[in-house]
Amino acid sequence: MNKEKGNINYVKHVLSFFGIGIMLSLFTFGFAQKRPKIAYTPAKDLTLVGKVASTENIFHRVDTNAFAGLPAAVKKRVVQSGGLAVSFKTNSPAIYAKWCTAGTVASATMTSVAYRGLDLYIKKDGRWQYAGVARPREGQTCASTTIVRGMDNAEKECLLYLPLYDETTRLEVGVDEGSTVQAGAYPFQKRVLIYGSSIVQGSSASRSGMAYPARLSRETGMDFLNLGMGGSAKMEKSVADMIASFDVDAFVLDCIPNSSPKMVSERTAYLVETIRKKHPNAPIIVMQSVIRERGYFNLASGERVRQQNANVKVEMVKLLQKGVKNLYFIPADDFLGHDHEGSVDGTHPNDLGFDRMIQVIKPRLVEILGTSIEK
Amino acid sequence: MNKEKGNINYVKHVLSFFGIGIMLSLFTFGFAQKRPKIAYTPAKDLTLVGKVASTENIFHRVDTNAFAGLPAAVKKRVVQSGGLAVSFKTNSPAIYAKWCTAGTVASATMTSVAYRGLDLYIKKDGRWQYAGVARPREGQTCASTTIVRGMDNAEKECLLYLPLYDETTRLEVGVDEGSTVQAGAYPFQKRVLIYGSSIVQGSSASRSGMAYPARLSRETGMDFLNLGMGGSAKMEKSVADMIASFDVDAFVLDCIPNSSPKMVSERTAYLVETIRKKHPNAPIIVMQSVIRERGYFNLASGERVRQQNANVKVEMVKLLQKGVKNLYFIPADDFLGHDHEGSVDGTHPNDLGFDRMIQVIKPRLVEILGTSIEK
Repeated sequence: MNKEKGNINYVKHVLSFFGIGIMLSLFTFGFAQKRPKIAYTPAKDLTLVGKVASTENIFHRVDTNAFAGLPAAVKKRVVQSGGLAVSFKTNSPAIYAKWCTAGTVASATMTSVAYRGLDLYIKKDGRWQYAGVARPREGQTCASTTIVRGMDNAEKECLLYLPLYDETTRLEVGVDEGSTVQAGAYPFQKRVLIYGSSIVQGSSASRSGMAYPARLSRETGMDFLNLGMGGSAKMEKSVADMIASFDVDAFVLDCIPNSSPKMVSERTAYLVETIRKKHPNAPIIVMQSVIRERGYFNLASGERVRQQNANVKVEMVKLLQKGVKNLYFIPADDFLGHDHEGSVDGTHPNDLGFDRMIQVIKPRLVEILGTSIEK
Repeated sequence: MNKEKGNINYVKHVLSFFGIGIMLSLFTFGFAQKRPKIAYTPAKDLTLVGKVASTENIFHRVDTNAFAGLPAAVKKRVVQSGGLAVSFKTNSPAIYAKWCTAGTVASATMTSVAYRGLDLYIKKDGRWQYAGVARPREGQTCASTTIVRGMDNAEKECLLYLPLYDETTRLEVGVDEGSTVQAGAYPFQKRVLIYGSSIVQGSSASRSGMAYPARLSRETGMDFLNLGMGGSAKMEKSVADMIASFDVDAFVLDCIPNSSPKMVSERTAYLVETIRKKHPNAPIIVMQSVIRERGYFNLASGERVRQQNANVKVEMVKLLQKGVKNLYFIPADDFLGHDHEGSVDGTHPNDLGFDRMIQVIKPRLVEILGTSIEK
C-alpha cells in the first residue's frame, strides 16, 4: 500500500471513530486536491530499454526455451532483470512505482534496493541524473512507493532501472492523475552486448543504475546490453552459440572471472570464433578479470586470477595470430585502483571500484566502438 | 556451525554409513592435520579500538545509563557497534570469526555485511589493507565463518571492524590451533570524536571499514571515533552535555543533516560552547551537511539543505565573532563530486561519494588537527 493511500485510510479511520462519516466524501475530495490520486501505466506500454533480444516475458533478458542446452545456472540468471529499464516522459511533479519480484533475499554484499528495487534517472541539461530509488519491502514480493516528488511540472525524460538480481514479475509506473505520461524515446544507440559474470550483472553496485554497463550507457550514449550472469559466465558452448545469435553491433567479453584457468584456455577461442562467424565485422573486445583483492592475502586465490589472466592473454595472441580482425584486449591492471578499497568482499567492485574501472575502460571502449562499428 | 566442523560431520556421517567407524579417529586425525581446528579468543581479550569511552558492555559505544535525559532514538543508536574494531596479532594462515548481533535486518540501502557483518584489515607494507569480510547468516542472529585463509604464516597485525548498525552481542576471533594470537597495539593516536548522523555511522558504506571515520583513521593514523547516530544527530542539550564530557582531543561536528534549519539556528551555539567550556583548547570542526542529491529534483528537499547549511554558517560567524578560538568550518560544496553518482538514495553517500568526501575533508582535517591538538 502506498503512503498516500495509507494516509487516506488513516483519515477514514479517524473520521469513522468520531461518527462523522457524512463528511468523508467532502474531506477526501479536499485531501485528494492536495495529494492527487496516482495513475499507473504498465511497463509494457512504455519503452523497454536494454533488451538483448525480444522475449515473451518482457522482464526476462533471454527466452531460455529458445536456446537448447543452456546450463540451469545460466537459465536462472538470464531471467533476472539486471540491466533492463523503461523509458518514459512525464510532467508529473511526482513519480511512483508498483512492482513485484520473485522475492529472493539480497546477498549479504548487495543492498536490497540494488538487488530487487528500482532506480530512477531524469535527463537534466542533456545528462542523465540520479533522481530517486524505490525501496522494496522486507519480506514481501510486491511494493508500491513514491520514487520522487516535489518537482516542477516541466516535461521530463525518465529512465527507470529494474532490479539487478531478482526476477521482476510486474512493474507499473505511477504519475499524479491529470499529468501526462507516455513512452519515451529509445535513449541509446549502437548495441553493444557485454557478456560476463556477477560483476557485469551489477554486484555490488549500490543501486541498479550504478551497474557498470548502465553507467557506460548513460555516459557514452551507446547501448551497453547487460548479459551478466552471476557465477555462471563460463563460456559454455551453448552459451557461446546463443551469444553469437544476438542481433547486436559489438561484443564485450568480461567472462574471465567465472572461468577456471583451464576453461579460459579451452573455451575462449570457440566463443570468439563463433561470434566472428555470425558477425564478420563486429568489434569483439575481451577484458581480463578484475584482480581479486582477497588474492593479496589468499595466495591460491591470487595465483588463480594471475593464471586466468595469463591464459586469456595467450588465447588472444593466438587468435590475433590466426588473423581474427577487429579483436581487442583490455588488461585489468588498474581496474580497481591501488588502495585496495574498491571492492565489497575482495571479489565484487563497490561503487568506488566500478568508478575506477569505468575510468579505465570507457576511453578504450569509446575509441574502439566509435571507430569500429559498421555504420 | 563453521565450514570445517560441517566437513568433519559430513565425513563422520559417510563413514558411519559404510560401517567403518573404527577408522574414524584415525581419519579425523589425518583430516585435522590438513584443516587445523580453530582456537577462538573472545574480543574482550583483544585490543578494543574506536571507543569514545569505556562501557560496561564492551560492544556499546556509550553507557546510556551514565547520561541523563538522552532521547530514546539516541540511546538506540549508541549501543550499536558502528566504528568499533578489535586489534590483534596472529601468524595463523586463516582467520575466522564467531559473532552474534541483535538480528535487525539491514535497511534497503545498506548491505547486510556492512550492517551486521565484520570487515578485516591487515597491515601490509605499513598500510592497512582490506583482507576479508564475514557475512552474516540470513535470518539468524549468530554466524561463524572463515574471513580469510591461505595466507603465509608470517605474524600479521589485524584490525577487525564490527557491524555498523546492529547491536553486537558477542564476538570471538578464531585462528588455526597452534598459531599465535594476542592483543594488538592500539593502532591510532590523537582522539578525534566525530558526532553526526547516519552518514557518520556508516550509511551507506559497502562494509564497515569503509565508513568515513574508519577510512580517515587508517589513512591518517589519527583515531577518529565514530559517534554517528542514524536519524538522531539533532544536537539535543543532553547529547551536547554528553559529548562535552568525553575525554578526547578534538571534535568534528557533522550533525547538520539531521537537524532542521530551526534546530541548527537554536542548538549549534550551545553544542559548541558546551564543548569549549569543558575543553578550552580542543579544535572544534563544524561541517556543513552533504548536499542531498534528491534535492536537485525535490525542490523542497533541496531548499531545506540550503537552509540548514546557510544557518550553520550564520551560527559559525556569530561564534567566531564572539571570540571562540580554534573553531573551524568545512563547507560541503564538493563533498559528493559533480556527476550526481555519489549517493545510494539521494541522501546517503555510497563508497564513491564517501571517497570524494574524504578527498575534500582529509587534507583540511590533517591540516587543522596536525597543528592544533595540544601535545
